[in-house]
Amino acid sequence: MTKKCALLIIDMMNDFQFPKGEQLARYADETVPSISQLKNHFHEREWPVIYINDHYQLWKADIALILEHVTNDISDPIIQKIKPDDKDYFLIKPKHSGFYGTALNTLLHELDVKSVAITGVAGNICVFFTANDAYMREFEVYVPKDAIASEEKKYNEYALEMMERVLNADVRPVSELIQLLS
Amino acid sequence: MTKKCALLIIDMMNDFQFPKGEQLARYADETVPSISQLKNHFHEREWPVIYINDHYQLWKADIALILEHVTNDISDPIIQKIKPDDKDYFLIKPKHSGFYGTALNTLLHELDVKSVAITGVAGNICVFFTANDAYMREFEVYVPKDAIASEEKKYNEYALEMMERVLNADVRPVSELIQLLS
Amino acid sequence: MTKKCALLIIDMMNDFQFPKGEQLARYADETVPSISQLKNHFHEREWPVIYINDHYQLWKADIALILEHVTNDISDPIIQKIKPDDKDYFLIKPKHSGFYGTALNTLLHELDVKSVAITGVAGNICVFFTANDAYMREFEVYVPKDAIASEEKKYNEYALEMMERVLNADVRPVSELIQLLS
Amino acid sequence: MTKKCALLIIDMMNDFQFPKGEQLARYADETVPSISQLKNHFHEREWPVIYINDHYQLWKADIALILEHVTNDISDPIIQKIKPDDKDYFLIKPKHSGFYGTALNTLLHELDVKSVAITGVAGNICVFFTANDAYMREFEVYVPKDAIASEEKKYNEYALEMMERVLNADVRPVSELIQLLS
Repeated sequence: MTKKCALLIIDMMNDFQFPKGEQLARYADETVPSISQLKNHFHEREWPVIYINDHYQLWKADIALILEHVTNDISDPIIQKIKPDDKDYFLIKPKHSGFYGTALNTLLHELDVKSVAITGVAGNICVFFTANDAYMREFEVYVPKDAIASEEKKYNEYALEMMERVLNADVRPVSELIQLLS
Repeated sequence: MTKKCALLIIDMMNDFQFPKGEQLARYADETVPSISQLKNHFHEREWPVIYINDHYQLWKADIALILEHVTNDISDPIIQKIKPDDKDYFLIKPKHSGFYGTALNTLLHELDVKSVAITGVAGNICVFFTANDAYMREFEVYVPKDAIASEEKKYNEYALEMMERVLNADVRPVSELIQLLS
Repeated sequence: MTKKCALLIIDMMNDFQFPKGEQLARYADETVPSISQLKNHFHEREWPVIYINDHYQLWKADIALILEHVTNDISDPIIQKIKPDDKDYFLIKPKHSGFYGTALNTLLHELDVKSVAITGVAGNICVFFTANDAYMREFEVYVPKDAIASEEKKYNEYALEMMERVLNADVRPVSELIQLLS
Repeated sequence: MTKKCALLIIDMMNDFQFPKGEQLARYADETVPSISQLKNHFHEREWPVIYINDHYQLWKADIALILEHVTNDISDPIIQKIKPDDKDYFLIKPKHSGFYGTALNTLLHELDVKSVAITGVAGNICVFFTANDAYMREFEVYVPKDAIASEEKKYNEYALEMMERVLNADVRPVSELIQLLS
């Protein structure tokens, strides 16, 4: 049984300029094939793809400025592979959760989706808190385990376990999720 | 006694493509000198100027795209006179109120302002509901009467009366507000 | 065509201890027959009836304490006629809008209603701002004109006009609304 | 240096009727001496104590009804030791976070506190998500490690580690927190 879903890509347009940022970039880069595969699948089905991204204190709804700001040697390979297409949505968020201080809930309502697939970084922070806010707002939550990354592998594992247990999230990997949604 | 205030400019980057849109554009244009004067004053004091604008169903934090979308024969004279400067903040909102589905509250907190001067259109809709949301969040509210416009003069009058009575808004005109804030 | 609706009764458990409070109480009392008729209709259909009420700075989810606090010579006749039944929901709100700082949105979602009939006081303040918040959250809004009251008749008229025009509210009186919903 | 803080007591008025509920009750009971000590300290300083509690699907701001509903053989010893006093605030919440669908943020603003001490259950769910929402709203967060409990010790440990790292929470135990605040 298929029903329309929205793909959320969190904080992948990232400058990785923070402690352990390089390590997170490495793990994030490993998720790019999975996220890309899922994104292509959503594009084929004409399902929505929504980037929700930190605004880097620019406080400006200006995608060009943000992309310019985050591009550097570490981030560029990731940005090139997974940056937003023209048809994708792009929202900025001021804090951890993709729902806090953003139009995400309204957009999801307007798109008439009841489930979200959450991907990106950091798995145990922004992904986790976005997943909880999605759960509190009654969305069905998928968090494909090969499409999120955290600074430390053990934090990623723990976050997945908590999302599965506490938020009823389905964490099967992207290849299986695509089958489920088909 | 002066304290830092934030200037909100609501929905002035507007295509005016709706019933009575041309009439609203005419009234909006009359407010431009007052809003500009206030904006200059805020710039001089290095106080924040925040545009909060409809996103025209683009759902994209992309100021260039939005400005392109709204520009037409009716709107262009207004846009040219009052468009955002590089140093101004620019947020998009999905609904009437500037606080709903936006980072405005977080931004105001970070800027450490306790009062807002609300200007723009429409006075009896987006300005009004933004003023109420500001009031509910404990901000002191100024709505200079010569800096807001509604489709009908009588609606503007009524909105001002209600904001003054119900939200304790100070509605003195821009010239007097500048004196008060100095 | 009928679909489940929720009846909101706003601030009718009221002490009316404020300027023009007695005048508002008189007008509020005039709405009681209409609200009661609508409430009975909702009870018969087993549709939800939700009181949303100021908490009078008690900050306590304690209906008994609130009813005790608001009861006085002016309010008692109204309270006796229209107080919550055991099966009715009862939420407290800290500010004007019934959605701000309350579980109303979550409750409406759980009840699976897409439309709300808003009644009570004051028509141009708490009813009005609740109606806007319902509209921003995509609910269909009914505000039966004989079931709301404001301090001044002209404010009530204006609020009805604005809700009809700006929020697409249906303001037909209770008797006609019952027919529409049947 | 001392500054006014609010004590949050989360979901301690609990029926523990869920898988591993008895185990959580046992761990929760172990936190009661610490929470009580902290509560007494707050009472002495006339600082606010705020209970935020699940409403058990009653959707009713009725503390008496909620206490009646949750009382059973397992919960009664805890409830007797730590139930709200008349002067304490009592809010109900519909979901995990104490900020979601509640007046908590408004109450904290009105009380003029900038920091919160979060206690109660479950440490890795409602306490954790409340802590994150407090952090996103710019509160300073204390989560005394001996005043929260989770179903599993390891979940409690992980939640404390995450709150310390990600939310900058201060997790020192109650005895040390009292010294810090004095």
